[in-house]
Formats: sequence, structure tokens, C-alpha cells
Amino acid sequence: MKVDVLDTTLRDGAQHKQISYSSVDKLDVISALDALGVQYVEYGAPGFDPAAEKLSRIIPSSLRSKPVAFGMTCKKGLRPDEDEALRALVSCPTATLTIVGKADARQVRDVLKTDLKENLRIIEESVAYAVANGKNVIFDAEHFFDGYRHDAGYALESLYAAVRGGAYILTLCDTNGGTLPDEVRDVTARVVERFPEVRIGIHTHNDTGLAVACTLSAVQAGATHVQGTLLGIGERCGNANLSTLLPLLAEEGYAEGIDLKLLTPIARTVAEISNVSIPDSFPYVGAGAFAHKAGLHADGVLKSGGSFEHIDPATVGNRRQLLLSKEAGKHLLIAKLQPFFPDIAKNTEGLKRIARALKEREDMGYTYEAAEASFVILAGKILDRDVTRFEPVGYSVTNTSDEPECTATTTIRVGDVTRSASAKGLGPVHALDKAMRACMLNFFPSIDKVSLIDYKVRVINPRSATGAAVRVLITTTDGRHVWKTVGVSEDIIRASFDALSDSYHFALSDDFDFYFG
Amino acid sequence: MKVDVLDTTLRDGAQHKQISYSSVDKLDVISALDALGVQYVEYGAPGFDPAAEKLSRIIPSSLRSKPVAFGMTCKKGLRPDEDEALRALVSCPTATLTIVGKADARQVRDVLKTDLKENLRIIEESVAYAVANGKNVIFDAEHFFDGYRHDAGYALESLYAAVRGGAYILTLCDTNGGTLPDEVRDVTARVVERFPEVRIGIHTHNDTGLAVACTLSAVQAGATHVQGTLLGIGERCGNANLSTLLPLLAEEGYAEGIDLKLLTPIARTVAEISNVSIPDSFPYVGAGAFAHKAGLHADGVLKSGGSFEHIDPATVGNRRQLLLSKEAGKHLLIAKLQPFFPDIAKNTEGLKRIARALKEREDMGYTYEAAEASFVILAGKILDRDVTRFEPVGYSVTNTSDEPECTATTTIRVGDVTRSASAKGLGPVHALDKAMRACMLNFFPSIDKVSLIDYKVRVINPRSATGAAVRVLITTTDGRHVWKTVGVSEDIIRASFDALSDSYHFALSDDFDFYFG
Repeated sequence: MKVDVLDTTLRDGAQHKQISYSSVDKLDVISALDALGVQYVEYGAPGFDPAAEKLSRIIPSSLRSKPVAFGMTCKKGLRPDEDEALRALVSCPTATLTIVGKADARQVRDVLKTDLKENLRIIEESVAYAVANGKNVIFDAEHFFDGYRHDAGYALESLYAAVRGGAYILTLCDTNGGTLPDEVRDVTARVVERFPEVRIGIHTHNDTGLAVACTLSAVQAGATHVQGTLLGIGERCGNANLSTLLPLLAEEGYAEGIDLKLLTPIARTVAEISNVSIPDSFPYVGAGAFAHKAGLHADGVLKSGGSFEHIDPATVGNRRQLLLSKEAGKHLLIAKLQPFFPDIAKNTEGLKRIARALKEREDMGYTYEAAEASFVILAGKILDRDVTRFEPVGYSVTNTSDEPECTATTTIRVGDVTRSASAKGLGPVHALDKAMRACMLNFFPSIDKVSLIDYKVRVINPRSATGAAVRVLITTTDGRHVWKTVGVSEDIIRASFDALSDSYHFALSDDFDFYFG
Repeated sequence: MKVDVLDTTLRDGAQHKQISYSSVDKLDVISALDALGVQYVEYGAPGFDPAAEKLSRIIPSSLRSKPVAFGMTCKKGLRPDEDEALRALVSCPTATLTIVGKADARQVRDVLKTDLKENLRIIEESVAYAVANGKNVIFDAEHFFDGYRHDAGYALESLYAAVRGGAYILTLCDTNGGTLPDEVRDVTARVVERFPEVRIGIHTHNDTGLAVACTLSAVQAGATHVQGTLLGIGERCGNANLSTLLPLLAEEGYAEGIDLKLLTPIARTVAEISNVSIPDSFPYVGAGAFAHKAGLHADGVLKSGGSFEHIDPATVGNRRQLLLSKEAGKHLLIAKLQPFFPDIAKNTEGLKRIARALKEREDMGYTYEAAEASFVILAGKILDRDVTRFEPVGYSVTNTSDEPECTATTTIRVGDVTRSASAKGLGPVHALDKAMRACMLNFFPSIDKVSLIDYKVRVINPRSATGAAVRVLITTTDGRHVWKTVGVSEDIIRASFDALSDSYHFALSDDFDFYFG
């Protein structure tokens, strides 16, 4: 049995702490999810949010994904057409609606504060009103599992009311996220048996860390509609994570139409738009999902690909990483350094010194796992190779609230020639970056095509507050290649200067072409 | 059936990207896990790591938790006592050992490169050697589930070899993390049936996002020993997350001896020591695990505690948060502001202006969810209340690589009096903080007991690299209370100055005592 997938990043996901989308962001997310092949994209609640109403009118009609508008059943005591929000929802041009209603008798009494029969009328009439206006209605049964546990008869009554109204999918929601997979499976199986004429959906939250497992259980029990968010974002602990579920559903033969090879790049695109970072350890799509650190494991992977990997990373658009760290075995160090220093395998003493330096630097707060270009420069210096074309001499930065911009001056030396350059920038690091660039261009015109594309700051020991050391990670590109460098200091300017210097060292090194060759 | 829990944060967890522990860190983690009531703490691999060997001799003997040392079976062709690493492991004073061996026939052939019979000898003799030296041995069967799928007979043979050697726990490891919960349950049940005389353990990885679900399935099938890491850290996607599992196991009646009320504070302590941040959305222990943002949900929670919560946050040492954001409903804004502005509920126009400002500020990159003190100052200004005792006039910072320290000067005005102060610091923000403090002390001696305890920087739109805006979050204390403020600018110094100013405004406000009253 195949399942359809509904992504609600833009609606339920937007409940996540610190998430907020502009209309442009929303269109970008919709188009990314469409490219991935998700069947439904829930984009907002036009009855409550004027921006969602506007959006409903400009979503491109060329999408393969069906846009879905979300809303609530009408208020107690009102007919559906008397309810302003519901009327606005139904009058937006979107053909498919999700309408949420209450399925837990206690919620009806304690939160909605009305009687159980009135709630059933509300559900039936609200759904019927939308259907009469030409909509396809997915009924989201809020608190369904808690409601079923408390009063199974009433929870089922709420579903019958939605079916009488004309809903074509009934979504069982574990709104509080506290139901365990076995219970989800049992209850879903019973509902599937009761309602052979409609499709059953599942909507879970991750409060027990089991949203993915619960969704999988529901699908095994016959649910054919899955709701979640691509990055698992959502209120509290988030919604079922589709970037984890999609490969699982595909592997078990449930998903269709999903272009899994796009999973990792699209997850990263949506993360960029959402301004969240995907933890390195995220299943399938995290930068470290297929990373190997320990000497033992990394050596195992080098010997036999599948030794410590459950799938080929390429099937989900991700890639294997062998991590540089003080835990790195000799084999890994050699594998990383051989492209640059072909004789490294024979240089036992050199390898030992590099391993020792790696350990010392890590203890100072450096990390080379995401800054391999800095590692190559470091190793080159330790091996006394000629890896630098210039010497970074110094810098100074002036920053005063009287002036709108900062000023920075940097100085470098090449052979016997020393040059300085100054620049203004929005902040101290921006000014430093511009000054450094101007300085470099005096000597190296090829730097013109090199530019910074990412800049990250991490306070390493935040308990020391403003006196803490910071780690700066810089990502640089020449338009075709991307490389990363690191700097660590108690002074953010010094750390940035060091990371910038490493980046230019790498850009100018003989090995550059080799590395990307 | 009760289960024992083994935390391997310090061993398997240390394989996590960017994790590295000093010996002091390790002792701190051990003591935190001991306070939580975890039965076993695996602290390292003395046979491979001299630091772990030293550590084994200084772990306090007063712990309730049993320390566990980890190692591997002997090398092929060697007797156990000829294997240096195994000898070092057995000669450390730790009474309980985990010994890992191969349970997958393919791994024996392709990675260990020996024959199947030799591997069984290796397992049996290695375990027997440790037992003969007075150790209690937990046998970790690496790649057990993959091995069982490929050649169930051989996977079981590896367990029989460990039992013959004298192992008292057999841990089934899903080393690649690709096995699904149903299969874990079935296989575990069969193993439990085969080995009535020993205990069966489970060790899972989170590569499919199902490590917790798989562990729970194994326990339901009769496993009585659970391995994981408190924060889920570990190679690739991490190990089974104990901070999620412990409350689940407790709720289902499997765990004992765990002080769940300490779960959140201890998880945060271990995160601090590990220098990782717990994502806000982490189940049970995340700062946002019980956070409510939407007007609808937050209003529901205000009406009826359990409406959107699966458990009482206090049972795991966490607390409910009602989040300030542009999605915040009127009820939530009133609830947040009433302590400071008692007449706010009646001030419809004021509330509207505050809601509008909240939205505008969020669009600029501010976030008040973790900076409520800044929100109170902002609301006070909008309402034209007298919430500030000083005016931050300006600053200037000079930073040059010729000098070891930065210099900052700040100026504030109180009434008609303007004062400046200068200070040196390790970096520009540190200098700014010290100058600001010196400046404030001219006017407000009570500031003496106020100090910064946390400083966070986030690049908001990293795609603009060094020209991107940054958000600075500052945590301040007066020794008894803690408050948080925010600043946003393309200039990190400006953002820090604004957040510092807000922090001092709040410290000096009339409402301060009320807020913490």
C-alpha cells in the first residue's frame, strides 16, 4: 500500500521556536518540497493569517505537489458560513483543505467549553460546508489518541461526523506526542478497519522521541497518509521528521514519487531558508550522518564500505566523511594527507608530529573536522613544506558608535615587500575581510575571484562569558570550489584574521588544483 | 522485569564529531551520571588510551554507579595474555569490563580477515581470560543484527562462545543503526529464549532515527540491560539517547533507581562539560520541550495544563515555557507583561503596538523567546513608561595585533551627567563589557554584584558571510537571579553594546524585584 506525504513545515512547523517565514521564504520552501516530490504542501492558515490568504493566490499552478490550506472547524453556536475564519478559508482558491476538529471529549468540555453533541455538529457541518464549496477535505482529528484512550466511542464519533460531512482523509493526531508506537499501531488498525471507505492519515509529535517510529507503526497498520515536516521542526519537540521518514518509507516500499537523491540538498535548502542548522548527527541528511572518526571504524570503512554504514550515503544525496581528529588512526591521516604530501606514508616521524599537533590544537579549541584546508596548511608547516605564499603580519580595527562603519587595516609580507591596506565595513570582521582582500590583491590578482560565503562564530567556553575563546569557521569559494578554515582566540578579530589567512594560503597553494583536480 | 542502564558517553559518545574530554571532564561526567542513578558508566578503553588507564586508578570508590572499562577481544593468532591491549585492560582495577567481539561472519572474513572458527576461539578465550582475572564481563556482540540477518547460526555461535568464556551479559549491538524496531524485537525475543542463564543487553545507533524505539522494542522482548549515551551523542547519528529513554523506561515500569527529577539539570551539566548544546526541541530535557508559542496552544495551556503536554515537565526536572513571538496571542502577551504593567489588559492600543513591534523586531532578526528582559524594556519604552535609568551614549573599540589586549571606551548619560570609562580586554567584546561596567559603577554601585555568565553569538544570515547580521544573546546574574537580553546588528560590537545596555536597564529597573519577587 502506497502512502501520500503531507509536509506541514510552513504551518505546524512555523510553530517551532525561533522560526518565522516571509512570503518569499514560503514560496521557496514550496518549490523545494515540490522538487522533492512530496504530494501535499500545507502552506498556512488563510482564515487566521492575512499573509497566508495572499499566498494562496500566488502559489504557482504548475506544481506537482498539491498546496493545502489549514483551518479550524466553525466556532460553537455558529453555522459554518457565519464563521469569518472558515469563510475566508473556503473562499481561498486552494482545492485541498485540512480542517482540524476536536476528537477528545475532555478537550470539548474543558477547552472548547461546549457539549459533546455540539462538537459533532460543528465537525460535520464545517466539513460539509467546505465540500459543498468544492473543496477536498482532510479532517485532522486533534488529540485523537488521547481521546481514544479516554473515550474511544466519542473519538470515533468525531471521525464519523467528518465522514458524514464528506472528508476523504481522516488524520489521527497524537497532538501531545505521548503515545507509544504499539498503541498507535493498535488504534490505527482498528480505525482502518472501521472506515474502509476513506483513507486514514497519521500526524505525530516527537515529545517522546518516537514520532518517526509511531508514524511507521501507523503505516504498517494501514494508514496511507503521513503528515510531518521535512526537518522535524514544530512546536515543542517537533513533528514527525520527513527527512528521516522518507528514506524509511521508501525502503519499506511505502513511498512513491519521492526523489530521494535530492533529500540531503533539499533538506539543507529548507534549513537555510528556515534559518536553522541541521545538526551534524541528523539521520540521513546531517553532515555527519555518514562520518567516521575513530581509527578503528574509519579504518574499517576504508577496508570495506558497508562496515559501518547502513545504506550508501549517495542514495539520499549525502556523502561519507572521514573525520580528522585526535582519534584519527594513522590510516586516516595518511589518506587525508597523501594528495598533498605523496611521501607522507613513509614519514613516520612527520606523521607522529602531525598527530601530536592535532591533539594539542583540539585541546585549545580548534576543530579540523569542518576545516580541512586549515589542516593541510598546518601539516605543511609541520613538515617544513613551502605551503604559504605570504606572511600575515598584523591588523588593527577601529570601531566607534559615532561612525556608521568600522575601519580595519591589515598588513602582509611577500618576500621583502610589505604592504598594508585599509577598508571600511559594516562590522569589525567585515572591515577586516575587505582590508585583507585589498591587501592580497596587491600581490595576487587571482584572489579576485575568491570570496567568502559563510562565516560562523562559536563561543567555546560560554561560561567565561565575554572573556571566552571563540572559534571562527570560514567557508570560501572561487566560484567553482569550496574550502573551509578555522581560527581560535579569545579575540574574535584575531580568530577571524587567522582563519582568513589560512583561507588565502590555501587558495594560493600549489596543491589547490590537486585538491580539487 | 527491571533493566540496568549503561551510559557510554565517555567511550562510544566520545566518537561524536567535535567531542573530546579531559580527565577532569570525565570525572565530572561520571559524578553527574552517578547522581542520576545510572547503574553502569563506561569511561574509556584503558588498553588503547593511556589517559583511560590513568583514569581507572582515580575513579572514586564511593560511587553507586559501577565504572566499566571497554576493550576488544585479543588479536587473531594470539593468546589473550599475549595481547598487549587486552592485558592492559584486565590489569586495570575496574571490576566490570565490556569486551567487544565480532558476531557477523562477513566482518570476520572481510575486516578481521580470519576464519570463522578462529573468531569463536578469540571470543571465548578473551572473555575467559578476563573472568579468570576476576572480572565481570559484558560481551558486546558487534554487528549482531546484521550478522543474524546474514547468518543467524554464526551470530548465535558468537554468543555461545562468550557464554562459555563466562560473560554475564550479552549485548546485541546494531552497530550500523539500520535495523528497524520490529526486527529488533523479534531477534531479541529469540535470543532471550535461547539464553535463559544470562542477561541480554541492547546497544543501538540512531542512523534511522529509531534508536530509542529499537531499544524499547528490545526491552519489551526481554532485554534487561540498555546501553546508550545521556545526550544521544556518538559516532554518525549517535547512540540511543538515554535522556529520552530513561523517562520512557520509567513510565513503562522498567527503570529503577533513576532520579528523574534530576534528568534535565544533569543533561545540561553533561552538555556543558561536553561543550555541546542541547537542541531546544530535545524530548524531555530541551529548553523548548514544553514550550508553547501559537496563540491557540498557549491559550489552551493557560486554560488547562495538560492540553498540549504529555507529562508534567517537573517530573523530569524541566519547566513549561510560554514563548513570546509574533505568533503569541493576546492572552500570552498579557500574561507576560502584567507583572510589570498591571494595567496592560485594558490598554488595547498599547498591546497592539507591542505586538506590532514584536513582529517588526523578529523580522530584523531579534528573538525575544530567550531574552525576556529585553522584551520588558522594549514594551516599557513603547508604553512610555520610565524603564531606563541611564542613556547609553556610545562606544569605541581599538584592536590591533601589535598589542595583546583590545581597548574599549563607553559613554553613558544619567540626567545631565555624562561619563566615559575605558578598559582593556582579551577581545573587543570583553573590553567593551569591562568598560561598560566601569562606566555604570560611576553612577550605580549596586551594579557591582552584577556579572555576565553567558555570551552567545549567532550569524543570522550566514550566506552574506562577514557582512551578515549577528544576534548576540547575553545572560546576566546578580548571584541570585538570572536574566537574558538580546542585540542585533551587522556589527557585533553594536549588537553586544545594545544587549549589555538592556541587561543593565533591567538590573536597575523598579520591576526587577517584582520580576523575581
